[in-house]
Amino acid sequence: MKQQFGIWLVGAGGGVASTVAVGLAALRRGLIQPTALVSALPCFQALNLTPWDQWELGGHEIRAANFFDGAQQLANSSRAFSPALVDQVREDLVRWSEQIRPGFLYNSGQAISALADSRQSRQLDSPRKTITAIQEDLRAFAAERNLEKVIVINVSSTEPGHDRSLDELDWQQFSTQLDRPDFPVPASTLYAIATMELGFPHVNFTPSVGSNLRALRELAELQQTCHAGRDGKTGETFLKSVLAPAFAARNLHVMSWVGHNIFGNLDGKILDDPNNKATKVVSKDALLGNILGYAPQTHTSIEYISSLGDWKTAWDHIHFQGFLGTPMIMQFIWQGCDSILAAPLVLDLARFVGLASQLGEIGELGWLASFFKSPQGASAQEFSEQFAQLRSWAERQMSS
Amino acid sequence: MKQQFGIWLVGAGGGVASTVAVGLAALRRGLIQPTALVSALPCFQALNLTPWDQWELGGHEIRAANFFDGAQQLANSSRAFSPALVDQVREDLVRWSEQIRPGFLYNSGQAISALADSRQSRQLDSPRKTITAIQEDLRAFAAERNLEKVIVINVSSTEPGHDRSLDELDWQQFSTQLDRPDFPVPASTLYAIATMELGFPHVNFTPSVGSNLRALRELAELQQTCHAGRDGKTGETFLKSVLAPAFAARNLHVMSWVGHNIFGNLDGKILDDPNNKATKVVSKDALLGNILGYAPQTHTSIEYISSLGDWKTAWDHIHFQGFLGTPMIMQFIWQGCDSILAAPLVLDLARFVGLASQLGEIGELGWLASFFKSPQGASAQEFSEQFAQLRSWAERQMSS
Amino acid sequence: MKQQFGIWLVGAGGGVASTVAVGLAALRRGLIQPTALVSALPCFQALNLTPWDQWELGGHEIRAANFFDGAQQLANSSRAFSPALVDQVREDLVRWSEQIRPGFLYNSGQAISALADSRQSRQLDSPRKTITAIQEDLRAFAAERNLEKVIVINVSSTEPGHDRSLDELDWQQFSTQLDRPDFPVPASTLYAIATMELGFPHVNFTPSVGSNLRALRELAELQQTCHAGRDGKTGETFLKSVLAPAFAARNLHVMSWVGHNIFGNLDGKILDDPNNKATKVVSKDALLGNILGYAPQTHTSIEYISSLGDWKTAWDHIHFQGFLGTPMIMQFIWQGCDSILAAPLVLDLARFVGLASQLGEIGELGWLASFFKSPQGASAQEFSEQFAQLRSWAERQMSS
Amino acid sequence: MKQQFGIWLVGAGGGVASTVAVGLAALRRGLIQPTALVSALPCFQALNLTPWDQWELGGHEIRAANFFDGAQQLANSSRAFSPALVDQVREDLVRWSEQIRPGFLYNSGQAISALADSRQSRQLDSPRKTITAIQEDLRAFAAERNLEKVIVINVSSTEPGHDRSLDELDWQQFSTQLDRPDFPVPASTLYAIATMELGFPHVNFTPSVGSNLRALRELAELQQTCHAGRDGKTGETFLKSVLAPAFAARNLHVMSWVGHNIFGNLDGKILDDPNNKATKVVSKDALLGNILGYAPQTHTSIEYISSLGDWKTAWDHIHFQGFLGTPMIMQFIWQGCDSILAAPLVLDLARFVGLASQLGEIGELGWLASFFKSPQGASAQEFSEQFAQLRSWAERQMSS
Repeated sequence: MKQQFGIWLVGAGGGVASTVAVGLAALRRGLIQPTALVSALPCFQALNLTPWDQWELGGHEIRAANFFDGAQQLANSSRAFSPALVDQVREDLVRWSEQIRPGFLYNSGQAISALADSRQSRQLDSPRKTITAIQEDLRAFAAERNLEKVIVINVSSTEPGHDRSLDELDWQQFSTQLDRPDFPVPASTLYAIATMELGFPHVNFTPSVGSNLRALRELAELQQTCHAGRDGKTGETFLKSVLAPAFAARNLHVMSWVGHNIFGNLDGKILDDPNNKATKVVSKDALLGNILGYAPQTHTSIEYISSLGDWKTAWDHIHFQGFLGTPMIMQFIWQGCDSILAAPLVLDLARFVGLASQLGEIGELGWLASFFKSPQGASAQEFSEQFAQLRSWAERQMSS
Repeated sequence: MKQQFGIWLVGAGGGVASTVAVGLAALRRGLIQPTALVSALPCFQALNLTPWDQWELGGHEIRAANFFDGAQQLANSSRAFSPALVDQVREDLVRWSEQIRPGFLYNSGQAISALADSRQSRQLDSPRKTITAIQEDLRAFAAERNLEKVIVINVSSTEPGHDRSLDELDWQQFSTQLDRPDFPVPASTLYAIATMELGFPHVNFTPSVGSNLRALRELAELQQTCHAGRDGKTGETFLKSVLAPAFAARNLHVMSWVGHNIFGNLDGKILDDPNNKATKVVSKDALLGNILGYAPQTHTSIEYISSLGDWKTAWDHIHFQGFLGTPMIMQFIWQGCDSILAAPLVLDLARFVGLASQLGEIGELGWLASFFKSPQGASAQEFSEQFAQLRSWAERQMSS
Repeated sequence: MKQQFGIWLVGAGGGVASTVAVGLAALRRGLIQPTALVSALPCFQALNLTPWDQWELGGHEIRAANFFDGAQQLANSSRAFSPALVDQVREDLVRWSEQIRPGFLYNSGQAISALADSRQSRQLDSPRKTITAIQEDLRAFAAERNLEKVIVINVSSTEPGHDRSLDELDWQQFSTQLDRPDFPVPASTLYAIATMELGFPHVNFTPSVGSNLRALRELAELQQTCHAGRDGKTGETFLKSVLAPAFAARNLHVMSWVGHNIFGNLDGKILDDPNNKATKVVSKDALLGNILGYAPQTHTSIEYISSLGDWKTAWDHIHFQGFLGTPMIMQFIWQGCDSILAAPLVLDLARFVGLASQLGEIGELGWLASFFKSPQGASAQEFSEQFAQLRSWAERQMSS
Repeated sequence: MKQQFGIWLVGAGGGVASTVAVGLAALRRGLIQPTALVSALPCFQALNLTPWDQWELGGHEIRAANFFDGAQQLANSSRAFSPALVDQVREDLVRWSEQIRPGFLYNSGQAISALADSRQSRQLDSPRKTITAIQEDLRAFAAERNLEKVIVINVSSTEPGHDRSLDELDWQQFSTQLDRPDFPVPASTLYAIATMELGFPHVNFTPSVGSNLRALRELAELQQTCHAGRDGKTGETFLKSVLAPAFAARNLHVMSWVGHNIFGNLDGKILDDPNNKATKVVSKDALLGNILGYAPQTHTSIEYISSLGDWKTAWDHIHFQGFLGTPMIMQFIWQGCDSILAAPLVLDLARFVGLASQLGEIGELGWLASFFKSPQGASAQEFSEQFAQLRSWAERQMSS
């Protein structure tokens, strides 16, 4: 019998998670083409990534939610995909929804806590108790579904910025404080610890801090597991990482780069809170200076406009100097459906990280940088260079 | 005394040529930053490319024109650069204008011939006589200015498509017909022959056929000289070669790519003739299929809108399918000044080709592909890959 | 028992007709808000326009088509509206589809004829025979559905430009030639004649010539009936008629106005034929000179891009001079669903023209100018002035 | 000898004032066409508005500044107009600059005070002393230049929101407190009082409160003078007032209207202060609800991007529902030069208000509503209706 693998989604009731579920079910049943799946590109076929029918889904969620309702809402109110497709995969969505457990709040901030349903969310006395409870859920999922390995992927809403005092702690210092109720560690990091202590790989698709701490890098080494992050690069920032290198290569001087993002899903509502938004904007803005070698004036705004639903629209205005100092302008408008852009990357990450884990890779998987706005374990921000790293990794595996 | 080099511009009265002249003069005098010059990037500094003060300018032109008047017009009517800058470099522009000779018409098509001034253009009895007359001008330029080498760069308006019977001729067959007055070889090719027979390198910055013929590839080998082309990649197509690889890498399916270009300079007027436009559109469209691996529906239009002068505006609408077949849209608007975009690339090409020639490179310089819409001697159309080839070439020279 | 009225759609299988059917059915059943219906504005309520449940539908079509299939296709392939809505009104769509009769080809041009299904279209020996056959269908519709009045509305694809020799004929000259098989009168005009000879009102929502001939204006007077046209003003041209007056009022000098339209429905395919496109472009371009009082350079292109389906996207680039001659730019991008924009205006026209007909109005209804790109019987092209005329007409009726 | 009139600009060192000066001088000398001057439209010619050569300029400014330097900076750093034009009118600019007096700070807020040059600005002990000092400057200007009348026009930067306790005071209550140093009346209002007490007309081209107070409306009546305001309608809001009525007339339901404005002049810097920005955003946003009859979600942002200089770029995204609830999108991009847009309206207002004053009009000039974002004395916000009011006023004057 074939090995089974699990994807555990933190934020299982959100749009990304619902779309992951619809997509995975549709792929299993051969209802859709593998469009938008990086792992389905010809150059990765010889890797023998785990086929779609060997994956199970589950997750944590702080609201009353399931994959089927979430998918129906996206289909109907955001026109993200066809309602008929949701009906065709209903059975899978319902079955997977049985594996959704009440999520955990811990230093999650005002905006996220306000969303939580008190009967569907848990807030335990200490970080350690939270970790233990998460691990019970993960173990139960693996046991009930008979899974070889579970990849935990955080697709929940953005937390406020984390307490900077956490940055310098080593794992020894960090772990001893996990029993202190007032230890300011956020939920995203607790999920990462819970995952890695079980030896499972962890992926952070959000701008929240997650495993991006000295202590957690040590933990991964100790547990001989791998992790990847941070903040899925789906739309505007993806384009920044594609376009900015071209300006640099032509020695065109970018004077200012303004990006204005509007969208109306739950993530957008959370980002309307200035604390949460700050985390996101930093992640979206940092790469320009890195790529260009100087810091143009930048402005990135993100506004919640409810009528747009899951359709994220970005207008970018790039003001640059050409020869003889002549100012010129490039503008772009990106009209993408947030969950539709994110979900295939989540599935790709599950497969790539799953394989890396099987191959025994340890620590931050920097060769996955092309998937992230703030890549952990990597320095290049140019998309083409990041993608070349992914291809090189694949070539190394295939030739070995 | 330092060696001097010459740039000979075919189309010396056009906007690109005037801007090359203003820019070269301003660089010699330290009046401007090297913005937009690829050859000024840090990664190319150890190449010791010929400094700006060792270059002289001259060229052919079929209209009554000189660098100073051309520059003034661009400054005043198109606001391409400041009139004060033109005044500061007047002396150089006037001196270089002494080296502008009447240009040659030969199978140049109706639109170009209509522009020609009968006292400033020449139409000789045969291709061979034309070649000989061009060579006299090039030799005189080299002698009068005491030049080590002349790089001939075609920046004239686009010719109609060439006679396909030329494609298969070898140099032996080709050269014997050059005395036939009815041999359908266009002026762009005669300039290339004249140049290469003298052992000088030739660059074709236009979509005209130039040296892109079997016979001329042979000629370059015979004469031990080098050549590069075709059609400078300055704006919309540059962006296509930057963006299309990103869609491909993400497995996003491009359903259609529409590009609508408007501008109002002389080139635009020439392209209003359907014969000339056809040559250009092919050059702008071909790369998408090459990069994506399939052929989306494309539409590229180029319209002459006189009020825009030298400001070329492109609107591109990219309609693509994402996950679950969901259609999404990217649009961009590019507002660039045509001559300002082209001129620095012309200067870069003079320096890179000049160095290659000194180093004894022979044949098509495929590593210059990043500069061209239809690169000769190269297959990659992805900009990042093309730029990597340029860097690799430079690294090889620097390490040897 | 309440009076019943009929809408007879020429082009009953097209997207506009299907959307009219879905909308009318949904309004009857109270399934939708009256969004986008001008006749539903508060200022027209006292007119007591015929309520939605007193209208029946029928029409002519040259292809095998019915309202239900057309609606399903729009819902599924163009995402124009929800498939669930189509299901809810299926019964009405099926019943109305019984009243779709094979359409007539007559000087319809190559592009339209190529679309026709030979079993679903008719091509009779002479114009007069065609008229008679149309009238039989209209009479049968009125009789079978027990209709007080039938309003015939042409929503079919654009014909090539008409033979200019028709322009100057009076009705006497015109009518005597209707028996000549080679009389170059197009189908759009035959439908108008058939309608008006029966004393019914006629509306031409297309750029085809229809009733816009001296002879047909006379016919309307003779038959004491009314007619309105030409070419529904739904998207880009609507915006031109809104924006151009503002530029004029501010004395901003429009130097050029470029409009680039892309869409992928059947109308777009027909307009890919240069003969048919010419008819449309004239209609889209003429108003600027009329409103501004001078003729800026204009360029209007319409391209068939199949992936867009019914979604018509227009990019307009307006280059204007401000104070001190400074050039400035306004651009707009309009992303509208063609049928969704047109259908409510068709329903509005049925109600307004129906009332006018009941009130005994005769001839061209110039006060409906706001609905048309090339309004018959009206000179003003400014949208706000045209809309004021509609309101004034309504106020006169309400006060009398 | 002809009568002379004066325009007194509060904020004489800003870009708008410099452009007013260049434009007025160029019009006097016949160097430019009257493009962008509403008062130059054919429909206003019979009004016999005061010709350009009968106007003198002066003003207050809190920084070291003069018309010539301001004009040169706009020409050179923002490419707003040609440097050659500034040279041609230098003599006028220098002469008018002699009439620039140090400006007054009074409850002007942090951002404006930070800009002030201590030697060029004055801050007196009480509102009344400030008023008196302003009046001395205005009287001196009138005397020195032998002026029949002075029209004071505020073109300075936006103040923070005013103290709401001022709103309900009548002139009696208000005037008695002008000696209190802590009376929270802002400078914009003191300029208005000073002007109207002298019987001169006052125009407020800024969003600051100015004369928009009950007490000042009374003062105008008492002094038998007229005033107009508030906040010149130059770009994005002008377009809102043109487009929103069209959506309303077509019963299209605007769900959200997002406007993102970027620019880099001094006004932009001031608006970077949240207090000042709030005043502006209210003025830009209010009209939509007024025109549409319901309040769509709106978002207006204004960001200071220094590379843009005086070029204000607005991206507006209008999300609306059409028939059957189908969501559609209009976007526009406006690239205008702020001073170039504002200056001709300032000159128009001087002429129209000057004539109204000569004709004895008293109070708020509501028929000037088309010039303002927050029109005083008028309720209509639709541009076409506002413009019709201006034409009606003119027709009444011409027929009387």
